[in-house]
Amino acid sequence: MIVVMRVSSKESEINAVKSKLEGVGFKTHLIQGVERIVIGAIGDKRALPSLGIDLMEGVEKIVHIMNPYKLVSKEVKEKTIIQIGSTSVGGDIMTVVAGPCAVESEEQLMESAKAVKEAGATMLRGGAFKPRTSPYSFQGLQEEGLKLLRDASKIYDLPIVTEVMNIKTVELVAEYADVLQIGARNMQNFDLLKEVGRMKKPVVLKRGLSATLEEFLMAAEYIMSEGNYEVILCERGIRTFETATRNTLDLSIVPLIKQTSHLPVIVDPSHATGTWKLVAPMSKGSLAVGADGLMIEVHPNPPEALCDGSQSLTPENFNKLMQELQSMHSLLHA
Amino acid sequence: MIVVMRVSSKESEINAVKSKLEGVGFKTHLIQGVERIVIGAIGDKRALPSLGIDLMEGVEKIVHIMNPYKLVSKEVKEKTIIQIGSTSVGGDIMTVVAGPCAVESEEQLMESAKAVKEAGATMLRGGAFKPRTSPYSFQGLQEEGLKLLRDASKIYDLPIVTEVMNIKTVELVAEYADVLQIGARNMQNFDLLKEVGRMKKPVVLKRGLSATLEEFLMAAEYIMSEGNYEVILCERGIRTFETATRNTLDLSIVPLIKQTSHLPVIVDPSHATGTWKLVAPMSKGSLAVGADGLMIEVHPNPPEALCDGSQSLTPENFNKLMQELQSMHSLLHA
Amino acid sequence: MIVVMRVSSKESEINAVKSKLEGVGFKTHLIQGVERIVIGAIGDKRALPSLGIDLMEGVEKIVHIMNPYKLVSKEVKEKTIIQIGSTSVGGDIMTVVAGPCAVESEEQLMESAKAVKEAGATMLRGGAFKPRTSPYSFQGLQEEGLKLLRDASKIYDLPIVTEVMNIKTVELVAEYADVLQIGARNMQNFDLLKEVGRMKKPVVLKRGLSATLEEFLMAAEYIMSEGNYEVILCERGIRTFETATRNTLDLSIVPLIKQTSHLPVIVDPSHATGTWKLVAPMSKGSLAVGADGLMIEVHPNPPEALCDGSQSLTPENFNKLMQELQSMHSLLHA
Amino acid sequence: MIVVMRVSSKESEINAVKSKLEGVGFKTHLIQGVERIVIGAIGDKRALPSLGIDLMEGVEKIVHIMNPYKLVSKEVKEKTIIQIGSTSVGGDIMTVVAGPCAVESEEQLMESAKAVKEAGATMLRGGAFKPRTSPYSFQGLQEEGLKLLRDASKIYDLPIVTEVMNIKTVELVAEYADVLQIGARNMQNFDLLKEVGRMKKPVVLKRGLSATLEEFLMAAEYIMSEGNYEVILCERGIRTFETATRNTLDLSIVPLIKQTSHLPVIVDPSHATGTWKLVAPMSKGSLAVGADGLMIEVHPNPPEALCDGSQSLTPENFNKLMQELQSMHSLLHA
Repeated sequence: MIVVMRVSSKESEINAVKSKLEGVGFKTHLIQGVERIVIGAIGDKRALPSLGIDLMEGVEKIVHIMNPYKLVSKEVKEKTIIQIGSTSVGGDIMTVVAGPCAVESEEQLMESAKAVKEAGATMLRGGAFKPRTSPYSFQGLQEEGLKLLRDASKIYDLPIVTEVMNIKTVELVAEYADVLQIGARNMQNFDLLKEVGRMKKPVVLKRGLSATLEEFLMAAEYIMSEGNYEVILCERGIRTFETATRNTLDLSIVPLIKQTSHLPVIVDPSHATGTWKLVAPMSKGSLAVGADGLMIEVHPNPPEALCDGSQSLTPENFNKLMQELQSMHSLLHA
Repeated sequence: MIVVMRVSSKESEINAVKSKLEGVGFKTHLIQGVERIVIGAIGDKRALPSLGIDLMEGVEKIVHIMNPYKLVSKEVKEKTIIQIGSTSVGGDIMTVVAGPCAVESEEQLMESAKAVKEAGATMLRGGAFKPRTSPYSFQGLQEEGLKLLRDASKIYDLPIVTEVMNIKTVELVAEYADVLQIGARNMQNFDLLKEVGRMKKPVVLKRGLSATLEEFLMAAEYIMSEGNYEVILCERGIRTFETATRNTLDLSIVPLIKQTSHLPVIVDPSHATGTWKLVAPMSKGSLAVGADGLMIEVHPNPPEALCDGSQSLTPENFNKLMQELQSMHSLLHA
Repeated sequence: MIVVMRVSSKESEINAVKSKLEGVGFKTHLIQGVERIVIGAIGDKRALPSLGIDLMEGVEKIVHIMNPYKLVSKEVKEKTIIQIGSTSVGGDIMTVVAGPCAVESEEQLMESAKAVKEAGATMLRGGAFKPRTSPYSFQGLQEEGLKLLRDASKIYDLPIVTEVMNIKTVELVAEYADVLQIGARNMQNFDLLKEVGRMKKPVVLKRGLSATLEEFLMAAEYIMSEGNYEVILCERGIRTFETATRNTLDLSIVPLIKQTSHLPVIVDPSHATGTWKLVAPMSKGSLAVGADGLMIEVHPNPPEALCDGSQSLTPENFNKLMQELQSMHSLLHA
Repeated sequence: MIVVMRVSSKESEINAVKSKLEGVGFKTHLIQGVERIVIGAIGDKRALPSLGIDLMEGVEKIVHIMNPYKLVSKEVKEKTIIQIGSTSVGGDIMTVVAGPCAVESEEQLMESAKAVKEAGATMLRGGAFKPRTSPYSFQGLQEEGLKLLRDASKIYDLPIVTEVMNIKTVELVAEYADVLQIGARNMQNFDLLKEVGRMKKPVVLKRGLSATLEEFLMAAEYIMSEGNYEVILCERGIRTFETATRNTLDLSIVPLIKQTSHLPVIVDPSHATGTWKLVAPMSKGSLAVGADGLMIEVHPNPPEALCDGSQSLTPENFNKLMQELQSMHSLLHA
């Protein structure tokens, strides 16, 4: 940590800062500049929030040198590969989690599962509990939906990824699902993060709509700090001024995460763009920037979907896209 | 709802859209323009998400005419005044909720309560459960903190506002608190919104960091749709590219809410700006744009605070500010 | 400047960085931490961009300690008051620049000038050259408009503020105007900034739609570095995800500027909000946060305006607002 | 255009709106809903800004159906291919404009030109006039730089792309350059757009840092409305809250433009990310989402660059990247 003092600061003020830092175990170094005085402090940053150095007399600002995360960092591990049933995420396999936004009925789900399996998806997605902006929108089939997902999983040999929305249903969802998904709106629902951190199931953690890279990694750190190290990060668009797409897919975070963390990263172009016509190009773009895979909405009949039909691919379009993605994956891993 | 068809759309496509709309009870009107064809549909928008009109052949886009919210709207009520103990929010009284970020100890809380009471605050704030970006930061005194708040409330005759972070603790918090607070990160934690919607306690709902006006109002609609009509909206800064302040306090949302909804609105300049030096001017600005009150962090000794000391006022500064705010409130309500 | 080295960096790498810094006149100080090595460099930051330290082996990142601006800084001057005819900006007078978006005709301008003068405005605004998003929109009366402004100025004894859009017309506009305005879209039109920097007329510099505080101040620095020290900063809304207002008026930048710079600051709530119903509350809010004044659009007949009628006040509404603003100004300067 | 009237609006108010619309040649259609009354107006939207309908009594809001642009639209043309010397943009060739941020010296430029030519770049970039945030930064070699670019062009048979910053130097730059570049900060410098619109040279138009798709296309419309139809759009990152990259590269605008306009689109990952380590993945991503090409900074010795060294590739890294891009281009155009 670097403490920048005003050049007009008094010796007593400088000494007060040094004493406080040394009192909690930091070693300090004074650098006297022409227009500023700088105190370098060597020690463990995480003890610091309560120090209140920035409010002391003569202090202009504080600059933190260390990142606040630890377990997610590439400094502790090179690469995490997560085994899920017979597939894996983060290794050489191209992960494609596909399926409908919401589980609507047995027929709709089975048709979706069959289609995505045949096209080469590695996991099945489908919402049983749905977070909806309006209380008047369809809220999901709940446990009935979980059972249908389990059935589909058996029939089509596809691990299930489904969202868990609150701490009361974590155990219920974990009974049926292979992978627990934390939605974007819950990325900083810290109690929920801790709860899934105590489960022995991999977690797909979606980036919050206005989460920075650091906050995204800190949310993963919450899960990992409870003992669950199997976290898959998922970029799904951030909020910007641009209204031509629902959100702005931030693909540059993918290589940034790869340079910073050992965790796998997938991309959800369906929710990010909000329109199926952009799903194919943005899926290819996601692989090209280095994502480990994708999460794509597929519905047997998008115009009849109870949720997010506009962004869902038909089985035909999904099948066509999968072929293009496989070529691209081969090229990138040649 | 307005459906815009491409000028090249076929008669069969236009008829298909009309049939679908009429099939769910809409009346339709066709307007033939030079470059576009428009179908006006009259009916209840909330049945619509499942129609999938935007995916039908020949459709260019859909324009919604009605707002998605209902109970929060000024169309149903002119003004809501919420009685809380001997004070109220939304009427002629200037609401000031003040106190420390987190309850740290009996001494710290009592000192804070005494100071804010003497300066004229109408309610006491203090966090017992703290949502923290880092799992390694102080997480709050929990039930012990709630008890201290209750004690302070009795001694200083101040209603208590405190945050509830998850559905499991809603009842516990409601036992001790006079007003339940939903934090910005939980603004779209829909299960939590429903749960506090079933309580008989007023709710302070903080705007999410990237929530639009419409989403903010829809979150209030969630609470109200469960039967709890006592919702106080709280602007606390949104996320923008500007890094000189922690967030950007969006004061224009205050008069906008006043023109759209009957609910009271308060402003939290402490969290929005992240620095105590901006709290006084932004508090005055909040009243001037029409806010019903403020939520301000006050700590007896900011440099020693376990949480957010940088944005906390000392009792002296708070006292000085309160005098300026009272003059401004008098001027605005003269 | 602080150079953070990786803990794994070699002695040769550290020495290379030190040599480079010392080679251009910096003094260096080495701080050896447990997980990082830090090199503090004392010297003039502005020589640095070409050093490329961040690309040297072993370097993790660079942290700048000094601000890049100088002439605008409060460190060189406490407060700037700009005399314009018989009025001034930045002192005790409440500055109100009012008038139509565009000069449309003699009648429209004279009526506007009369109305704003009677209500107490201190300067007259009106666009002769109009920057329009669409090439098909009204582009202004140009020199004819400037002449009308000059006439109105004489008749109503109001200094003129009008926009200059390009370097070719700076001299022309300066012949007629008392204050040159740089529009938001030109805030980083550096050649234009330099050109007005060579004029002997005060400049109203509008903040760019996505300009940070630092960039805003650097744009003022451009003007001042050419010798023109009379710069009035004008906040006019930034771009965020919120669509309920045209832009988001960032009032917190007003006290921030006051804490950082000696230059006067005014606020334009008309362009920021895009709707006249928000102009009155946001004007009062602007004064309350410490602005030196306002820039407000007034049109004798807003529904017939050739430009931005939606955000223009009628003379009646402007007159009513001015009375409220005068009361608030009195209160704030009591 | 659709005018939404309040349900409480009087017949006289509805008639007033109809009369006004019909008075300027619109045909109107009235749709009476339960909660709203809608007036559909058929006619030319571009006559409308001065109508002030939104300010008339009883009007709730106005919804525009038509896009404001025309010449850039895919409705007038399927695809534009621009011939530049022996290369072209927008067709089957992968466009790669490469070279240093700024022309610094003959040696530096020739070395850069040689390197990018050998690696397969199709055009040479290099700034002679540099827009810099700080007036104290290197501002470019100006005409001397243009001459060096011309020389390099001849020797290495590479068309030149270089920025023109103001209307006074458009002719000068056009004498030397093959393609005129409009920088992001000048995207809404409307006089400059018109000026390059009168030239007979292709234009690379960079997206403004906070420009929406519509504003970006309208800026191109400005150029085209003056007669110059050879516009190449260039995405270069937008401003968001994320600080881990300099800007956020919005790759989804590439397929969106392809669906909306006939103009070619290239991407500049160097300026968008601000760090050379992200240039390779984001370049591949750009091709994968459908861009016609790239603009990439290459410098023979990045740590010594006078401008933006951090984001420049070395000739070796650029060469390696070009091979990967060629494979990807082949795959995508197979």
